[in-house]
Amino acid sequence: MSRVVIRNVSVLVVPEHGECRVDDARDILVENGRIVAVVPSASRGAGDFGGVGVEVVDGTGLVAVPGLVNSHTHSPMVMMRGAAEDLAIEDWFNQRIWPMEVNLTPERVRVGARLACAEMLLAGVTTFVDHYFHADQIAEAVIESGIRADLAPTFFSSAGADAIDAAFEQTRELAGRHPRITASLGPHATYTVTDEDLRRAADFGRTNQLRIHLHAAETDDQTQASIDKHRVTPIQVLERTGVLDAGALIAHGCGIRPEDLPILQRYPRTTVASCPKVYLKLAMGEVTPIRGLRAAGVEVGVGTDGAAVHNTLDVWEALRMVALTQKQRENDATWMTLDDTLRLATRGSAAAAGLPDEIGVLEPGRQADIVLVDLSALHHQPVHNPKAVLVYSARASDVVTVLVAGQVVVRDRELTKMNLDEVLADAQALAHTLVDLSRGGAVQNYAP
Amino acid sequence: MSRVVIRNVSVLVVPEHGECRVDDARDILVENGRIVAVVPSASRGAGDFGGVGVEVVDGTGLVAVPGLVNSHTHSPMVMMRGAAEDLAIEDWFNQRIWPMEVNLTPERVRVGARLACAEMLLAGVTTFVDHYFHADQIAEAVIESGIRADLAPTFFSSAGADAIDAAFEQTRELAGRHPRITASLGPHATYTVTDEDLRRAADFGRTNQLRIHLHAAETDDQTQASIDKHRVTPIQVLERTGVLDAGALIAHGCGIRPEDLPILQRYPRTTVASCPKVYLKLAMGEVTPIRGLRAAGVEVGVGTDGAAVHNTLDVWEALRMVALTQKQRENDATWMTLDDTLRLATRGSAAAAGLPDEIGVLEPGRQADIVLVDLSALHHQPVHNPKAVLVYSARASDVVTVLVAGQVVVRDRELTKMNLDEVLADAQALAHTLVDLSRGGAVQNYAP
Repeated sequence: MSRVVIRNVSVLVVPEHGECRVDDARDILVENGRIVAVVPSASRGAGDFGGVGVEVVDGTGLVAVPGLVNSHTHSPMVMMRGAAEDLAIEDWFNQRIWPMEVNLTPERVRVGARLACAEMLLAGVTTFVDHYFHADQIAEAVIESGIRADLAPTFFSSAGADAIDAAFEQTRELAGRHPRITASLGPHATYTVTDEDLRRAADFGRTNQLRIHLHAAETDDQTQASIDKHRVTPIQVLERTGVLDAGALIAHGCGIRPEDLPILQRYPRTTVASCPKVYLKLAMGEVTPIRGLRAAGVEVGVGTDGAAVHNTLDVWEALRMVALTQKQRENDATWMTLDDTLRLATRGSAAAAGLPDEIGVLEPGRQADIVLVDLSALHHQPVHNPKAVLVYSARASDVVTVLVAGQVVVRDRELTKMNLDEVLADAQALAHTLVDLSRGGAVQNYAP
Repeated sequence: MSRVVIRNVSVLVVPEHGECRVDDARDILVENGRIVAVVPSASRGAGDFGGVGVEVVDGTGLVAVPGLVNSHTHSPMVMMRGAAEDLAIEDWFNQRIWPMEVNLTPERVRVGARLACAEMLLAGVTTFVDHYFHADQIAEAVIESGIRADLAPTFFSSAGADAIDAAFEQTRELAGRHPRITASLGPHATYTVTDEDLRRAADFGRTNQLRIHLHAAETDDQTQASIDKHRVTPIQVLERTGVLDAGALIAHGCGIRPEDLPILQRYPRTTVASCPKVYLKLAMGEVTPIRGLRAAGVEVGVGTDGAAVHNTLDVWEALRMVALTQKQRENDATWMTLDDTLRLATRGSAAAAGLPDEIGVLEPGRQADIVLVDLSALHHQPVHNPKAVLVYSARASDVVTVLVAGQVVVRDRELTKMNLDEVLADAQALAHTLVDLSRGGAVQNYAP
């Protein structure tokens, strides 16, 4: 039996409804990877939880928050960070990213995923929801680093039926590989995967209890193009192909229209991930309509998308951008409050990761995915409101210690399971190979 | 004679037009507070610049950027950080900030300004352009900390003629107090200061060669209210009162209309500061129309505004928000490029600070206000493009060493001139006094 106690820590409490709060002077007791109690430090319960073999983490001056979830990303794309700047979405895909991706190899993907896992853990991300090629290599990085992930092997219809079958099988295999790994089917998007292949994915998903993680209604232009070509919105495509019924994680959804909301409302397992830095950077014209989605009961999570456009895998930055851009979108400074934002980034993102009852909240029975954040840093002082710190002034560099499934994977700002120098050296050695455009060709063409 | 050499550093070069670049392996030679040369590290010039009494800073693995400028802030408002969340602009002013400001005392302002100077220096801000009460206390913090500032003593017309005269005199006194301090006249805004008082400020400014730093056209609602009440836009008010002619720094200007642009074009000493995190957070509806302003030849800088709304004094965050929100505003991902953003944050902000020929560029003759940033951090790797790092992945915590006027004021992430523990203890001891609403009243009422 493994036991950990985090002593004398403040704890962010995120109820399903109503105000979040920070309780001071708590002990968090962890047994076999799960939280078994959160009790006042002075109480008997904590005192009893001592003895031989218990790992003690001092939480003095720190606030424990549920491990952050990056609810939509393409982790190996850290290898292309900064290599596709100041471009609109069409050129970003067609001039840079898809031509670069002809260079992907299993080794390059593994090296990128290791770098991404290191960056995320050090920034307090304990779970990431990934969508990429060579996902078996990403699984290796997950297992090594100690992070948790949901992995979706990406496929296009243009790759052909055999490749799609292989992606399906790989998804099924990944789902059983490791306790910290779940898997989802990964059709790329409604505009790169045919209705027939979406239907096959939905059938395979229902049969094997696998969700479907894909891009849909990324922009309103995409929605309009779908209506023009097919007379239905991308969300309607997902409904008629059975994807919503199988359970979907929809990336972005900035082009979700009001008429899509009653459809989404009928599928409680379907969720949406919002990555607003990207929508502004690519000038996509809209952000995710979170207010409408939440009113329809749809769970929404926070993500970064790949670092080839977001430039970081920093979920603190992402959740702040959600708060800011949602206030702007709704022209309402009293919406997406501190409480709304923290709930979205914890419970919402847990749902988007397909783990609504396992992670996202620090309470007994949940996975011990816990991040300890330093509130004593100069740039938070004075702390009139710790929730405001978490949403509006926290930096990834304020993360001190990170537990995933009860294991300390970052201690005092250092990774415990990876050799950072080796991770960096490997990434730097291969970086040039990923951005090489000399081979010509592209893995796909953007023409939604 | 004081001499400093920064050896073997990469240097961000920001030309007036065209592409910025990063030159590797340079030495920066500093004499009596000014840059005297930037030369290849292997060259003879650098070798000659050795000898007794020369302070050597090793720049290996670092990039030197012009010290960041916070081109509009209210530094002591760090004391109210997090104390006015999720409010629209009216309630933010009338329910929180202006009632809180009845609690201001010289001591509380000084303590807040010291905290702000510490936060800014550690984040690579070498100059801030301030607008606040008890500005003589802020000057003390500037002198102590080693930072550079332009200080504008704030006044409302409601305070009466004697208070305004005192503010004018204080401004004149501050302008001569210290080589690192300049001063501007600080009428609060076009909606809190009468035309007559603006005219007096303009006259006093012209006579004494003092610029005027004020809030104007903060929102389009303000512009419309001005038109409804006075038949002119706030910018037209500034013109007819002589403020533009005296030279103005206009904070925000989100409500600047197209018809204002030809007016602003006529006043080359008038500049604008943009603080977009605030515009989104307060749901102000618009961001600064920077494209139009730049097309009209108006210089624009980047700022944070006060931490009571921005929650940080982090100019990295602010310049990134400028890039993102400008792409969004213009629906053009190829606008506010890396080059545009870096130029705005350096040359543009230097102009907004009233020091267009003194700071903002690392070249001979300029003040040696230099920030060394660590590009080797994990979250920047691999570095395909250092300019993308500076705009889209840099964190304030990447700042290693900071020089202002040739003095090392931050060395290896530590302040050299202030006792941080004391600064923090003083701020924490007084923080509750600033947010106390029990006294009733308010320094002003927001009703533009």
